[in-house]
Amino acid sequence: MAVYTEVNDDDLTRFIAGYGVGELLSYKGIAEGVENTNYVVHTTGGPFILTLYEKRVEHGDLPFFLGLMEHLAAAGVSCPLPVRDQSGQILGRLSGRAAALITFLEGFWVRRPTAEHCAEVGRALAALHIAGQSFGMTRTNALGPDGWRPLFDRFKREADGIAPGLAASIERELAVLEPSWPKNLPAGIIHADLFPDNVFFLGSRLSGLIDFYFACNDALAYDIAVCMNAWCFEQDFAFNITKGRALLRGYQEHRKLEPAEIAAMPMLARGAALRFLLTRAHDWLNTPKEALVKPHDPIAFLRRLRFHQSVRSIGDYGYES
Amino acid sequence: MAVYTEVNDDDLTRFIAGYGVGELLSYKGIAEGVENTNYVVHTTGGPFILTLYEKRVEHGDLPFFLGLMEHLAAAGVSCPLPVRDQSGQILGRLSGRAAALITFLEGFWVRRPTAEHCAEVGRALAALHIAGQSFGMTRTNALGPDGWRPLFDRFKREADGIAPGLAASIERELAVLEPSWPKNLPAGIIHADLFPDNVFFLGSRLSGLIDFYFACNDALAYDIAVCMNAWCFEQDFAFNITKGRALLRGYQEHRKLEPAEIAAMPMLARGAALRFLLTRAHDWLNTPKEALVKPHDPIAFLRRLRFHQSVRSIGDYGYES
Repeated sequence: MAVYTEVNDDDLTRFIAGYGVGELLSYKGIAEGVENTNYVVHTTGGPFILTLYEKRVEHGDLPFFLGLMEHLAAAGVSCPLPVRDQSGQILGRLSGRAAALITFLEGFWVRRPTAEHCAEVGRALAALHIAGQSFGMTRTNALGPDGWRPLFDRFKREADGIAPGLAASIERELAVLEPSWPKNLPAGIIHADLFPDNVFFLGSRLSGLIDFYFACNDALAYDIAVCMNAWCFEQDFAFNITKGRALLRGYQEHRKLEPAEIAAMPMLARGAALRFLLTRAHDWLNTPKEALVKPHDPIAFLRRLRFHQSVRSIGDYGYES
Repeated sequence: MAVYTEVNDDDLTRFIAGYGVGELLSYKGIAEGVENTNYVVHTTGGPFILTLYEKRVEHGDLPFFLGLMEHLAAAGVSCPLPVRDQSGQILGRLSGRAAALITFLEGFWVRRPTAEHCAEVGRALAALHIAGQSFGMTRTNALGPDGWRPLFDRFKREADGIAPGLAASIERELAVLEPSWPKNLPAGIIHADLFPDNVFFLGSRLSGLIDFYFACNDALAYDIAVCMNAWCFEQDFAFNITKGRALLRGYQEHRKLEPAEIAAMPMLARGAALRFLLTRAHDWLNTPKEALVKPHDPIAFLRRLRFHQSVRSIGDYGYES
């Protein structure tokens, strides 16, 4: 959460003049976004978010991310809309960075989601999956099963410094998931990172989804598994089956799960927990102490993984046929 | 520039409900303010700034600062207006901090001010001084001449670590200023920190003054001296007499300088340069390396001080009678 790149007034005034959004009124760097620099910008045309893409984001993927947001917004999924400049470009350049001007989405993320919030997330996720079917671009999931072992190899010798036995736990889980990872499930565009801080609400109504910078093509049900990890555990790492039921029920209001997805869910949930355990453990060991962005605790996902290992079937997540 | 205190959605929703400003729509922590935490808040009633007062601000002074902003805004000085809650309070409490909701001022600070910007600053400063005459509260300038030596004593043994000879330079300057500091000049409310980042513009028109957290009672002409230090030097530390002339001329459109102020200006300018040299040198030596807020270079004010030491009269700043 940091402003990595300072923008000066002359450059921004010129930049904004290239869009049909009126005149610049104000801009303030905001403490949101781990990878990028973001500003709240007010113009005579309304409020916007200005994003400057820093080095950590693969720039070749930006047309995919921005094109996806534009596609989803056009399909009625509530998400920020990248504004095209007067020459039709979706991606500009400012202060030495690739930059995009994006409509401002009112709403804020919920620190203590209820089952009703989970139902809304389920509905929005299904709507995203359906709208994504007609999107023409594709992107591989770099953090799918093929990416797990190479990522683990980068830190496994230090892993037990986080928690004794962590390296062996991950090794055992990889040995289970790699040979039996579900294949040929219904696939398409997934958000892949739909945590509470990426979903805005106004009261109990979902106002929009943000942060599509992990979006990719993968099994749709894997996205549900990510959401169950992100939304349905309590502070003490107990799985809240009421929230799980609400999430699955909300999803199925728009898209019914297929038998193969129903069968695969426990394995997908383990994979999703492992994916966040791996990235968090890596960041935990590799983030300099003085970094502006503090790493998340990886052990929260080891605890979730333990739960998923005990699950017998999707019924344990609250699924009702 | 940092968000020191995180605000959760439930607490903020309750807090906003206590003001007559409609419903909370969004809030984002912004990277502005060195001492405090600030959020841009949108409600159905418009945009606001939410400020949480951290430890570094003397809380007993908050009624003075907020009352002053309210007084100045009522007198037509363009500055943010603290909103009173439904029970008439100007200061609330949120996330364990004293907190105020303040109207959002459009505009942004100018990285490369022109003489026209300086003239606007002069006009606004005089308007502030005139409006301040009817403000009923007072606050001593803790960073006036009586505060300089105690502050210097806190770091003088390490001062030469910033630049060789710095301690002796400061000692010599104190020996000049302490006995001859101008007394009995026209006094009143001064801003005391009106640097470019505290003045918002829309084009060449000044849209408002912010950050009154150093405001106090002192010689009005000292505030002009601060502004000359803040606005009229170039990157290479050369004094720009065109900007000085514009600043002084703009000021005098609203308030003519008196003979005693005219005579005192070179000494006041030296004092203002010394004041920022002292606080910056102290912060330079006492800010932890991993701090979110990087200290400003103190030497920039040693260079300004050298210029003021060479000044013969206010004419060297561009003053025209």
